[in-house]
Amino acid sequence: MEKVTVIKVGGAVVEDDSSLQTFLAQFAAVEGHKVLVHGGGRSATAMAARLGVETKMLDGRRITDEAMLEVVTMVYGGLVNKNIVARMQAIGVNAIGLTGADLDCIRSDKRPSVPIDYGYAGDVRKVNGAALHTLLEAGFVPVMAPLTHNGKGQLLNTNADTIAAEVAKGLVPYYDVTLTFCFEKKGVLSNPADEDSVIPRINRTQYNALVADGTLSGGMLPKFHNAFAALDAGVTSVVITSAVNLNSGTTINND
Amino acid sequence: MEKVTVIKVGGAVVEDDSSLQTFLAQFAAVEGHKVLVHGGGRSATAMAARLGVETKMLDGRRITDEAMLEVVTMVYGGLVNKNIVARMQAIGVNAIGLTGADLDCIRSDKRPSVPIDYGYAGDVRKVNGAALHTLLEAGFVPVMAPLTHNGKGQLLNTNADTIAAEVAKGLVPYYDVTLTFCFEKKGVLSNPADEDSVIPRINRTQYNALVADGTLSGGMLPKFHNAFAALDAGVTSVVITSAVNLNSGTTINND
Repeated sequence: MEKVTVIKVGGAVVEDDSSLQTFLAQFAAVEGHKVLVHGGGRSATAMAARLGVETKMLDGRRITDEAMLEVVTMVYGGLVNKNIVARMQAIGVNAIGLTGADLDCIRSDKRPSVPIDYGYAGDVRKVNGAALHTLLEAGFVPVMAPLTHNGKGQLLNTNADTIAAEVAKGLVPYYDVTLTFCFEKKGVLSNPADEDSVIPRINRTQYNALVADGTLSGGMLPKFHNAFAALDAGVTSVVITSAVNLNSGTTINND
Repeated sequence: MEKVTVIKVGGAVVEDDSSLQTFLAQFAAVEGHKVLVHGGGRSATAMAARLGVETKMLDGRRITDEAMLEVVTMVYGGLVNKNIVARMQAIGVNAIGLTGADLDCIRSDKRPSVPIDYGYAGDVRKVNGAALHTLLEAGFVPVMAPLTHNGKGQLLNTNADTIAAEVAKGLVPYYDVTLTFCFEKKGVLSNPADEDSVIPRINRTQYNALVADGTLSGGMLPKFHNAFAALDAGVTSVVITSAVNLNSGTTINND
């Protein structure tokens, strides 16, 4: 089975010209089929401020009213996505920018307004793996903005980590899938004070031991929860690494 | 040879919800392969005003400084394009939004700054007909925003009429191509005072006669100039019609 790598990179990396160039050189070097899923929250917040639209966050998630939906549609789907696509084309990566509405790639449901009304926020219902497979087989590199649609004409704001995980799962019938999350560290550290103490591989047994001895705690636990859910859905491995070196990092799998 | 219809529709149609819905119903009914090229100037001007960016036009063309490029990238590539795509998906049209940077569809050169500096305005150098052919053969419907790129990472603002004509020409090796321009009238009128006096067909001989007798003049002449240039490049017919009835209008060809 051929391989595909789905890489999620946050807004901080793609919104800064210099870090974007560094990241894209790494991305271009990834062999085989690949998909990029990007954020853009900082740009959205900055553009919203210029337009007098207030940014409201709750538990790290954006509350997307109608004015904010307009902002994220412009910023994620236009400004950030098309800038990445143009930069990729300049270094020979045959990128095609997508939202979940394009080719009906990602259908979502508007999140229920109780207990918390997140506004136009979409929870993923279905990924169109067949459409992405068609693009990948044509040699194209999908670059996905964190926007989805409900199939009735409504765009919805959707978390980029979730999109990356769902896209990875949606490609399982077609490929041997690696899901890579870029974050600010080189990988999962055995000693938080030592940036170079990256744990190269973690399986489920090792994970349980690392939780038991206190090495893993706090914000890392949801990341692992999502990683194991992706593995359970057939993704081969999940990598947590730095955007400046995609070849290092921590690989999580079922071995 | 299979047929493709390349349809250009202006900002006024796609920026208003009600006229967009009317148009999309017409567009959905067009048989065979099809491509939509859209404008979005009014939305760009409105968004620029909200951001305190001054809109400067010269001979009907936008001067695109760095701040305005940011606006058109957001508005054309994000807001307008993705709204159209989501609406199309809702009525069963398998749309995929594109700028010229996506799949390197349209490469352009920044317009020389003399005699007039239009800023980040792109003159089309090359259309990637092969990439569009791949999408069309997969059953996808490209929806193109009026943005191109220079192949070096720079997005450029490009006239939508020009993009439609160039895309039509770029598809000539693959299809029997019809190029349709939607405008505010039902077609070319023999009597400007009579909205129903549409001339159904005009060939080159008839065109020369209509210019000689004064029926055609002013703003219609450049439209015909572009239409004949497209026919010379192998496009089968050019249609000038209304966005509310794509089946009426004036067909210009070499018969």
